[in-house]
Amino acid sequence: MATMTTIDGRRARGDSSRRAVMRVAVDIASVEGLEGLSIGGLAAETSMSKGGVVALFGTKEQLQLATVAAASEIFVANVVTPALEVKGGRERLTVLVDAWLRYSETRVFTGGCFFAAASAELGSQRGPVRDAVADAMREWQQFVRRTVERAVARGELDQATDAAQLAFEITALLDSANDMSLLFDSAEPYARARTALARLLG
Amino acid sequence: MATMTTIDGRRARGDSSRRAVMRVAVDIASVEGLEGLSIGGLAAETSMSKGGVVALFGTKEQLQLATVAAASEIFVANVVTPALEVKGGRERLTVLVDAWLRYSETRVFTGGCFFAAASAELGSQRGPVRDAVADAMREWQQFVRRTVERAVARGELDQATDAAQLAFEITALLDSANDMSLLFDSAEPYARARTALARLLG
Repeated sequence: MATMTTIDGRRARGDSSRRAVMRVAVDIASVEGLEGLSIGGLAAETSMSKGGVVALFGTKEQLQLATVAAASEIFVANVVTPALEVKGGRERLTVLVDAWLRYSETRVFTGGCFFAAASAELGSQRGPVRDAVADAMREWQQFVRRTVERAVARGELDQATDAAQLAFEITALLDSANDMSLLFDSAEPYARARTALARLLG
Repeated sequence: MATMTTIDGRRARGDSSRRAVMRVAVDIASVEGLEGLSIGGLAAETSMSKGGVVALFGTKEQLQLATVAAASEIFVANVVTPALEVKGGRERLTVLVDAWLRYSETRVFTGGCFFAAASAELGSQRGPVRDAVADAMREWQQFVRRTVERAVARGELDQATDAAQLAFEITALLDSANDMSLLFDSAEPYARARTALARLLG
């Protein structure tokens, strides 16, 4: 029993170090890109030894994959969960879109939307990290599409709505607001996206 | 005179080497990012010596700035010039949008739109390279806005059109088609963008 407590205590400390280091890693990756994430850089930023970071994450690729998974969790907590708490069909869609804009606008990640940055960085590359980013983006776009379909099924959006098309247009506006606000250091792109979304969602 | 010919001959050879190396540089940068562009990498890719690349471009930052300028020229030739050849207001806008989609779809740059990649890469960074990318993007968005205004002034688009708003929505759809087609290895995002653009441009 004493041994188990010790092991559990160690594991708990490992988990909390891992979480703390992950929070730094997602932030670095949102600014410098997933390629910009290095064991050495992360060690320096968190005052850990390189060996300590390797013990927590293994290779650079494992570190990158863990960072994508950690960013997904933060994204879901900030964007998806608030929407799932809403019953109404069109209301859930509106809350989802508002939560996304707030998530980008308040810079939950220092470099804006983690997945917008990662998609652009890895879009024309190959490998498991790109695949993990593409999977996360596919899941997100499907969630938007299903949220649209749900609103249509409840009679709260036009029955003739092409859900996949509307989901594409919604995410295009969100991504562009994020990218342009970062590039031009301006809040105006968010206002433009809100204007277009209000029209699209009726 | 003999000396001048020699100098001009050298300059001409320098210019054509520079252009050839630049074409490789913009392609590397569209896939690996502007940060991924190195004097050493470019030398290896073009079978030049590092000293030869340095002689042509100077520092890494100068190389990056030259790459942004070269990419702008290629972009203008592929997207802006075909539109400027068209007289009609709405027709020019349609040709502009079609030319952009073709420029992205045919992978004029291996990694898709150079500026979409560079904006996402440098959006949350600072410095002269980011500023050059932001200037190019601002110029492009203003060109789209003026093309919309021209169509409105000629009575070929609704007089109530908010040109800056429509320009934002058009470029959001274009950028998203590019980014999603790369990430998902799919032509579908272009079809989605064309559907939305046909509706927006009436």
